[in-house]
Amino acid sequence: MSHTAKTGQAPIDFFFDFSSPYSFLAAHRLDAIAAKHGRVVAWRPVLLGVIFKDTGGAPNTANALKGKYMLRDLKRFARLHNLPFTMPEPFPFSALLPSRAYYWVEATAPDRAHAFARAIFDGSFQKGIDVSKPEAVAQIAHSVGLDGAAALAAVQDDRWKTALREATEDALNRGMFGAPYIVIDGEPFWGNDRLPEIDAWLQSGGW
Amino acid sequence: MSHTAKTGQAPIDFFFDFSSPYSFLAAHRLDAIAAKHGRVVAWRPVLLGVIFKDTGGAPNTANALKGKYMLRDLKRFARLHNLPFTMPEPFPFSALLPSRAYYWVEATAPDRAHAFARAIFDGSFQKGIDVSKPEAVAQIAHSVGLDGAAALAAVQDDRWKTALREATEDALNRGMFGAPYIVIDGEPFWGNDRLPEIDAWLQSGGW
Repeated sequence: MSHTAKTGQAPIDFFFDFSSPYSFLAAHRLDAIAAKHGRVVAWRPVLLGVIFKDTGGAPNTANALKGKYMLRDLKRFARLHNLPFTMPEPFPFSALLPSRAYYWVEATAPDRAHAFARAIFDGSFQKGIDVSKPEAVAQIAHSVGLDGAAALAAVQDDRWKTALREATEDALNRGMFGAPYIVIDGEPFWGNDRLPEIDAWLQSGGW
Repeated sequence: MSHTAKTGQAPIDFFFDFSSPYSFLAAHRLDAIAAKHGRVVAWRPVLLGVIFKDTGGAPNTANALKGKYMLRDLKRFARLHNLPFTMPEPFPFSALLPSRAYYWVEATAPDRAHAFARAIFDGSFQKGIDVSKPEAVAQIAHSVGLDGAAALAAVQDDRWKTALREATEDALNRGMFGAPYIVIDGEPFWGNDRLPEIDAWLQSGGW
């Protein structure tokens, strides 16, 4: 089945943090949901830590009972969707370097951008790779056909530092307080659990 | 279509706070989902404020951006399900008295218990009634065929104070940190947005 984007429609904005497990789950399904309705998705990695600092938020793991429940909920959801899933150690971790690298890939090899992002997510949440490390980012870049040495340079390049900072500011300006945060033509949806509602929204044009 | 409870199966526990708007939404759908699978629901109003104090939680409205999003999310969900919905003023409010009254109704007129609970929810979230007031609780009790004067006495009766305290302790012991919190044969589900997953869980017997 082939889908093409409807002419003149803005992409759906998918704001996420590479260290967010619910973003990992959403990343495996959002492109296909959008494509069903002829829409494309702009992936926007941001730094949730910066957003929490600005909005007074906190990771779910900050509350012991909630953290325990969330782990159960994540595993249950992953089993339902046949997605291998394991929580990375250490957690939380910094997604600074893979996020900068994402903007480098998007600018220089856009057709590989989503594959690179999914490989980063799967590295963390399926393979136990510590993707906060520059060598891991380079290796994953190489695994999707990119230049590992260029990736190592990119994670320290001011252009991609700026791109990440600007994306995080954009997310804040659009009301983001948690991840994933998905914006369709100005309408915000928070959470992996809103994907069925997003599907219905795209189907009906909103309600 | 008529459904009867499967013999020997424990009820599904539906822990909620009468002041929780997502609990209001769940309260309009959970009984029907359970009934499809031959299960009954034990409604368990608890005091979320006590649970937040114990678990370090906070209402969603404590975060301005999250509070703003939640209001939009609630209204969007209510529109999708054709449920009239309006946020009560003041909010948050204390659900102490209607919660005590619920345990009185459950013990003395169990066939009216869910109707009473739904009338309390609808009073808050559809009709703008301040259900923290004893007179409002009495009036709502009367509206579902109960004795209003007896309701006024019940909200100060030590038996129902104790029943509410014990239900809140039970919820904490079973891991509750937010509302609604639904437990099926030991499996916890948090949030109105888990109702489709609950439906699938009951259908398949879990996964």
